[in-house]
Amino acid sequence: MAKEEKNTLENTQLKDIISHAKEYGFVFPSSEIYDGLQAVYDYGQMGVELKNNLKQVWWKSMTQLHQNIVGIDSAIFMQPDTWKASGHIDSFNDPMIDNKDSKKRYRADVLIEDKAAEYEKAGDKEKADALLKLMGHLLEKEDLTGVQELIIAEGIKCPISGTSNWTEVRQFNLMFSTQVGSVAEDSTTIYLRPETAQGIFVNFLNVQKTGRMKIPFGIAQIGKAFRNEIVARQFIFRMREFEQMEMQFFVRPGTEMEWYNKWRESRKKWHEVVGVPSEKLRFHDHEKLAHYANAAVDIEFEFPFGFKEVEGIHSRTDFDLKQHQELSRKKMQYFDNDLNEEGKPYGNYIPYVVETSVGADRLFLMTLCNAYQEEEITENEQTKTRTFLKFHPAIAPVKAAIFPLVRKDGLPEKAMEIFDDLKYDFNMIYEERDAIGKRYTRQDLIGTPFCIAVDYQTMEDNTVTVRERDSREQKRMNISELRQYIGDAVSMKRIFEQL
Amino acid sequence: MAKEEKNTLENTQLKDIISHAKEYGFVFPSSEIYDGLQAVYDYGQMGVELKNNLKQVWWKSMTQLHQNIVGIDSAIFMQPDTWKASGHIDSFNDPMIDNKDSKKRYRADVLIEDKAAEYEKAGDKEKADALLKLMGHLLEKEDLTGVQELIIAEGIKCPISGTSNWTEVRQFNLMFSTQVGSVAEDSTTIYLRPETAQGIFVNFLNVQKTGRMKIPFGIAQIGKAFRNEIVARQFIFRMREFEQMEMQFFVRPGTEMEWYNKWRESRKKWHEVVGVPSEKLRFHDHEKLAHYANAAVDIEFEFPFGFKEVEGIHSRTDFDLKQHQELSRKKMQYFDNDLNEEGKPYGNYIPYVVETSVGADRLFLMTLCNAYQEEEITENEQTKTRTFLKFHPAIAPVKAAIFPLVRKDGLPEKAMEIFDDLKYDFNMIYEERDAIGKRYTRQDLIGTPFCIAVDYQTMEDNTVTVRERDSREQKRMNISELRQYIGDAVSMKRIFEQL
Repeated sequence: MAKEEKNTLENTQLKDIISHAKEYGFVFPSSEIYDGLQAVYDYGQMGVELKNNLKQVWWKSMTQLHQNIVGIDSAIFMQPDTWKASGHIDSFNDPMIDNKDSKKRYRADVLIEDKAAEYEKAGDKEKADALLKLMGHLLEKEDLTGVQELIIAEGIKCPISGTSNWTEVRQFNLMFSTQVGSVAEDSTTIYLRPETAQGIFVNFLNVQKTGRMKIPFGIAQIGKAFRNEIVARQFIFRMREFEQMEMQFFVRPGTEMEWYNKWRESRKKWHEVVGVPSEKLRFHDHEKLAHYANAAVDIEFEFPFGFKEVEGIHSRTDFDLKQHQELSRKKMQYFDNDLNEEGKPYGNYIPYVVETSVGADRLFLMTLCNAYQEEEITENEQTKTRTFLKFHPAIAPVKAAIFPLVRKDGLPEKAMEIFDDLKYDFNMIYEERDAIGKRYTRQDLIGTPFCIAVDYQTMEDNTVTVRERDSREQKRMNISELRQYIGDAVSMKRIFEQL
Repeated sequence: MAKEEKNTLENTQLKDIISHAKEYGFVFPSSEIYDGLQAVYDYGQMGVELKNNLKQVWWKSMTQLHQNIVGIDSAIFMQPDTWKASGHIDSFNDPMIDNKDSKKRYRADVLIEDKAAEYEKAGDKEKADALLKLMGHLLEKEDLTGVQELIIAEGIKCPISGTSNWTEVRQFNLMFSTQVGSVAEDSTTIYLRPETAQGIFVNFLNVQKTGRMKIPFGIAQIGKAFRNEIVARQFIFRMREFEQMEMQFFVRPGTEMEWYNKWRESRKKWHEVVGVPSEKLRFHDHEKLAHYANAAVDIEFEFPFGFKEVEGIHSRTDFDLKQHQELSRKKMQYFDNDLNEEGKPYGNYIPYVVETSVGADRLFLMTLCNAYQEEEITENEQTKTRTFLKFHPAIAPVKAAIFPLVRKDGLPEKAMEIFDDLKYDFNMIYEERDAIGKRYTRQDLIGTPFCIAVDYQTMEDNTVTVRERDSREQKRMNISELRQYIGDAVSMKRIFEQL
């Protein structure tokens, strides 16, 4: 397939998924009645359940299944020295350039990347690679004048004004800031955290001491982070407000590569167990490493717009704890009693850290893209396209829908009785409107694994039909069997046992 | 007991709870290594589990048990017109006054309240009440000059400088603001939401239409909100960053008082079922209503510092939806088919709203204060004080701890076998350090309902002892009985069935 054709198809698929997400209550543009806020989205009634289930599977599989991993929930607001120590105040920047005619601002590196993509599209991969390599070199040397001159030399034009009338390149800090405190002279500039990891590092000793944790051990956290992205795009893939699920694993110096490799494999497996086919996932090892890392890999998923990062595993060395120790003058050392018992010359050290960091919103988008299915089916001798969301039952927003076949003769009451009995165990929907076929279709569209129908036979023998989402097969069973049957299928325990 | 004595006792109790919370991993001051950030706290490894359990009980009891209530998760960032419509930009203010000598800023109303408390302490309750009434009158009329003159007339002095050299009183907006967007001329001032409710109102039609909701129905949400409080105090009771659990229930105009009364009762019952004795709860009806409300009540809990609000139930009328309709020019109307079928003259209306709004952090603090127990016990003929946290088992951070009696003869391996078998079902702790009595004590201090001990008899007959937290009683049972025994006690279903 020609690349352009493929692009169009991919865009169509992403568009279909975005409109499906809106139409069935998964994702709404934020403040939509006021025409929205760029790169910010709200999760609707189905989306919040899906996201909560994903967060819960991650949380429990991290903390509950590992006796040496605990969680925390640190605040979004942090004392600003945190960001001095972490390097975010000095260097959490994107290089920006303005076009003087259109007054539009761009990320300088994105302009050059787009140019490289043009070369590649025209068949000149060599030139594309060379351009990217040069740009990487200039950025690493923080040679912003060089980057500007490269843009001009490549004849890159502003897509709006069509001119090359560029300003110089400047660094733009991506952190959102605000003022805390009411007294003018006492008010402090604080930041919305750009990552959750630092909340773990500053609490390292608090958790280690009060939880009596022994190395190796981990601290997990789920929480919001904020970045004032210049170019935010691809739906919920890159947002200005987003949610991270991070785990920092503290280990003995020298053992970090062993743990890095372990977490790399175990995190990929996690995604597979939650329902992503392994051929849609791949590793992308970082060649250029961040200043704090000695190894880094992305787990990428094949989105409609190509393979992109969902999760990163990073060997962060002792960079963060060391920085905090230096700035706060609080010892960030761990006393390793085991080493002492082994007669090693030292027992005190700053641990090394291996991080697993997954974007909850990206995980959500991956799950939605992966679940979105269209298949040709034949019903009543007519061929039609069936759209359904093939979620793992344990993460599906609604576990079962219950329908009385008709709205009379006591069938609704019988159905409500079943609803009331099962509602303590499962998130369910009761629906009596429309023809039953339409009701099945609607549940397919939100990914409900089971539909339970109450009919006239139910009134006689207490049996119902249970229709399974993926196979569309119906089987008859006694009402008393429902709890066990649905419970086995939707239990998160099934996921945990495979990890 | 004299009031002063009582105050001291109460402060001691709060102090004990704060230090307990820190020492056992429930709540840490935020960024403590940098000496913290005022009125911001982090939840530690025990705190996050307790808070998550409370949030989950609330969420499921709201959404899963009611077929007509669904959830959403809207962003913290919202289009700023939202706050124009809601009235927050114009009037979400506190009156402030500065002392010119100390340069310190105070909440004018708090200065007057403190003065009234002085009168009351001196036995002049009448004067105290009159002062508060006058202040309320002036604030309602937005007569800030009057408030300033009252402060001067009462001879109120700055506690730092000791002078009455006051500035005028000004209004200070409590919303945190930040700049979004990178292009200088395109950047927009946005706010960190001061309440989660508006995220529900702007999504009202999205949820109603995509979820095919029929009135009466509710939308629930859990999320962070932010207020730049001038006076933030009492531990996690009033923080600058906090979490709300709100449910907006949309009803036919004219039926709101019926629903208001229903939710008022049902929310109080909820707190009781989750473990708060009813004598520690009371209603406080608002006499002075907010501009958007036609009825409002607080559910108050008896904290160590007195009865204070944990949850509010408000009949908000159609104020918010109307405001949004006016500013956005998007119809916020609901078409009530049932009314139509009843032959009523109209089917279209803006719904009325009854809100239940509980602070997750206050709920957490209430739960902790309520669970904190000290009792005299006699062990080995010695009397001592036992401190333990008497959480409802369903919300306890850790459900069971498992101990091998000794660290040899295969007991640790046997204990780990049980841990590995039960870890899919419960959050558990494995502990082999220290004497067993010390291990029990430690679990009491974090509120673990069950401790399982593996001893030599276990190796022979597969039985273990299970020690219950509150009674300290131990019973022997087969390992195969553990899942059911613990499961029954800690299941949230038990809570749900009582609601």
